[in-house]
Amino acid sequence: MSAAFTLSLDAMGGDYAPEIVVKGAALARERYPTAHFLFFGDETKLKALFSHDRALMACATIRHTDQVVTGDTKPGQAIRQGRQSSMWKAIEAVKNGEAAGVVSAGNTGALMAMSKLIMRTLPGIDRPAICGIFPSRIGETVMLDLGANTQCDARNLVEFAIMGECFARAMLGLERPSVGLLNIGSEDVKGTEALRDAAQVLRGSHLDIEFKGFVEGDDITKGTVDVVVTDGFTGNVALKTAEGTAKLFSEFLKTAIRSSWLAKFGMMFALPVLSQVMARADARRYNGALFVGLNGVVVKSHGGTDAVGFANAIGVAVDMIARDLNGKIAEELSHMVAEQELPVAEQTESQIVAEAAPQ
Amino acid sequence: MSAAFTLSLDAMGGDYAPEIVVKGAALARERYPTAHFLFFGDETKLKALFSHDRALMACATIRHTDQVVTGDTKPGQAIRQGRQSSMWKAIEAVKNGEAAGVVSAGNTGALMAMSKLIMRTLPGIDRPAICGIFPSRIGETVMLDLGANTQCDARNLVEFAIMGECFARAMLGLERPSVGLLNIGSEDVKGTEALRDAAQVLRGSHLDIEFKGFVEGDDITKGTVDVVVTDGFTGNVALKTAEGTAKLFSEFLKTAIRSSWLAKFGMMFALPVLSQVMARADARRYNGALFVGLNGVVVKSHGGTDAVGFANAIGVAVDMIARDLNGKIAEELSHMVAEQELPVAEQTESQIVAEAAPQ
Repeated sequence: MSAAFTLSLDAMGGDYAPEIVVKGAALARERYPTAHFLFFGDETKLKALFSHDRALMACATIRHTDQVVTGDTKPGQAIRQGRQSSMWKAIEAVKNGEAAGVVSAGNTGALMAMSKLIMRTLPGIDRPAICGIFPSRIGETVMLDLGANTQCDARNLVEFAIMGECFARAMLGLERPSVGLLNIGSEDVKGTEALRDAAQVLRGSHLDIEFKGFVEGDDITKGTVDVVVTDGFTGNVALKTAEGTAKLFSEFLKTAIRSSWLAKFGMMFALPVLSQVMARADARRYNGALFVGLNGVVVKSHGGTDAVGFANAIGVAVDMIARDLNGKIAEELSHMVAEQELPVAEQTESQIVAEAAPQ
Repeated sequence: MSAAFTLSLDAMGGDYAPEIVVKGAALARERYPTAHFLFFGDETKLKALFSHDRALMACATIRHTDQVVTGDTKPGQAIRQGRQSSMWKAIEAVKNGEAAGVVSAGNTGALMAMSKLIMRTLPGIDRPAICGIFPSRIGETVMLDLGANTQCDARNLVEFAIMGECFARAMLGLERPSVGLLNIGSEDVKGTEALRDAAQVLRGSHLDIEFKGFVEGDDITKGTVDVVVTDGFTGNVALKTAEGTAKLFSEFLKTAIRSSWLAKFGMMFALPVLSQVMARADARRYNGALFVGLNGVVVKSHGGTDAVGFANAIGVAVDMIARDLNGKIAEELSHMVAEQELPVAEQTESQIVAEAAPQ
């Protein structure tokens, strides 16, 4: 992206904030020299971290706030009591037009609830979703929802399919991404009613989506489809199971190599290619989940990420802004609403608070 | 197990049946010399496969049947039209007391529906579940349900917890296995109502279960708890996602090594330990999912497994028979039913058929 733009950063969100936020922005600055960063957080701490980096200072503004949304704050509580927090202020900067997007490594539930309340959803969107990228055998697979909506109806799943398809076009550069619904079998009769209804809408749809029907858990890494659509409960479990399995495998590998001097010797020669494997499976590469369906770009970084991961999350925000993802989703949805006349009721503040509370 | 016992085998179930069933039984015979095998399937094919193996012939009986339940047969259809099939006959042998347990690599939905109909559930059990073992960083993790029940209420989840705990004691030899409910966060307010209700029952329970509350997807491979309880939809997606991720990782590794002669040279030295890694992650080692909650031992082998995997599935059946898993579950449940007075309505044949139909 060559035009100048501003990103808003929740400097206090995440396990290693504000350090990784400042270092992540410093890395991102090298990649995106026209970026300006608006840091929300503890001014004293931030200034101390900045002092060594003149280049970053030149493209950064600090907005002081004392309040922080902690990892164990419930979303309902965050909404009611966190209006002076770095997270709230950072989102508000997008709403006010001061920033083109926001990145936070903080509490996911609070970030989603605040974003819904401050930005509201895109016209035609009932529920926003968390959208991320998985590595696959043939490239990359987009998956959503990764945890925003515990229970989903058919309408939600259809919206996720549309948003995921737009995301895959914008983020992976695919012309006609294929879409599948995550189920426990590929037969039409499998799964819940919501899944069967959503499949019917997507099959009969005038949306011109390349819908491939139902897919299963192993299709995520097989790359059977470009976009895997599921509810937030299943998506979150699948994401964390995949992360856990990848970690298990690398630990087995490390332990095995350490256990034998012959293996250690051999590994000296194999190290360059092994580093490649590790890089391909590196969770940091896939850090930065987009909250799709909002009136603004919100990217959630993994809470435990380091500076490299946070810089990648900033990269996701930059891509979404540069490629006008939200404009594309709104356009797709306008066809859907016009042709299928699916009703959408916008949530009131009290509904958002009530829904956020049990998350 | 030193006492003589008979296992019933669905010789025609699975992608590579009857070959892998015969070869798997031959491998199992070496491990369990007191075993007798009752093969149900095509007599001509089976006899041809047996002809080279006198030792196996000595401990096997063939019961001819022409009918086979194919992989794409719907469970409802299998129940109505498959009563002469190798699968039905093999289950019936357990019901009749001719065999102590049955192993099949055939259609999962059909196997579960037929088993429910022929054997019925254990007293006090509403729904049987599919129970399997995952590798973890510190050992092994038991998980259920892996796909029998798409939607579960709190009562089902509590029953799964009891059955999983008994399975972990019998199969992993743990004295006091810890149990967790799979959720998308460890906080009490997360997840569905069924999960929160089940957690409350397990926490307040007189069952004396070591209940650790909610766990997440990455806890399966971390080994945070010994038993992970979830509904069949989520469990099936998690299982297949884990399998897919493990496969992706080994493929990345193989591709990387093939791409460089230096790596290939180094790998010659590292091969023994790498084989160890592959063996630890080998899906065949974890083949053989138990259908818990039935009046009999039913083990489902992966449909695409080879003879080694099928022999392992036979091993699971042998362990369950030797350790009287069903007796232990029935005993635990009798406490639960007495103390909590949770009502159980046994399903009628038409209910089983109706429920099996959409699976």
